[in-house]
Amino acid sequence: MDQADIFPKGDLASADYFTGTAWVKILLSSDAELPTQIYDVTFEPGARNHWHSHPGGQILIVTQGKGYYQEKGKPKQVICRGDVVRIPADVVHWHGATADSAMTHIAIIPNTQPGTVAWMQAVTDEEYAAGN
Amino acid sequence: MDQADIFPKGDLASADYFTGTAWVKILLSSDAELPTQIYDVTFEPGARNHWHSHPGGQILIVTQGKGYYQEKGKPKQVICRGDVVRIPADVVHWHGATADSAMTHIAIIPNTQPGTVAWMQAVTDEEYAAGN
Repeated sequence: MDQADIFPKGDLASADYFTGTAWVKILLSSDAELPTQIYDVTFEPGARNHWHSHPGGQILIVTQGKGYYQEKGKPKQVICRGDVVRIPADVVHWHGATADSAMTHIAIIPNTQPGTVAWMQAVTDEEYAAGN
Repeated sequence: MDQADIFPKGDLASADYFTGTAWVKILLSSDAELPTQIYDVTFEPGARNHWHSHPGGQILIVTQGKGYYQEKGKPKQVICRGDVVRIPADVVHWHGATADSAMTHIAIIPNTQPGTVAWMQAVTDEEYAAGN
């Protein structure tokens, strides 16, 4: 565990929903009393998740490194340590590391009552590289 | 800004709701589309907020240092970098730094629709020191 890391890396992210190597550590499990899910995700360089959306929205807080965030139909954005990404309900997007830097973020699904995530197709290498 | 800090310190916390010196940096403002509020709070040694509760609950993620969390009627707990504190709706509590260490946490109010916070009386020096 890098001294700069706040949390241990957690479990390897599923290849069903991620391209490349990423780890997911659950920080808060949702329940009826507090229907919020929080996890920490570390992406190795080049790793990213598939296109997806959240019916209750999501917020990302970047705690280490440099990565990308892209909403469907918009150019990808570079996101860095200290950036906060606001993702309203049902906005289709992906996030991940840049090709030459790892990236760690806290991911918050504030309201799991309408569901947590709807997964879609993988981000292709062409989509990932576009706009560099 | 300490190299280990993720965010700048923000504004001085109000003496109406805090004892000692603390800073509050808003990370996400709540709105109708995404009714979630997130902020970063840094407490100097000895600083703490007043007794309070959140009608939509709260989650704390400690990112630096060592502090205390106490729920009304229970002993105070020591919380450290990497700890996640789950606070259900309407649970009366306070949080702050220990006497000899600063503490920084991210604070998430996942659902502001029923309101954000109900402030109560200050934590007395006797309450703060109890159980040491």
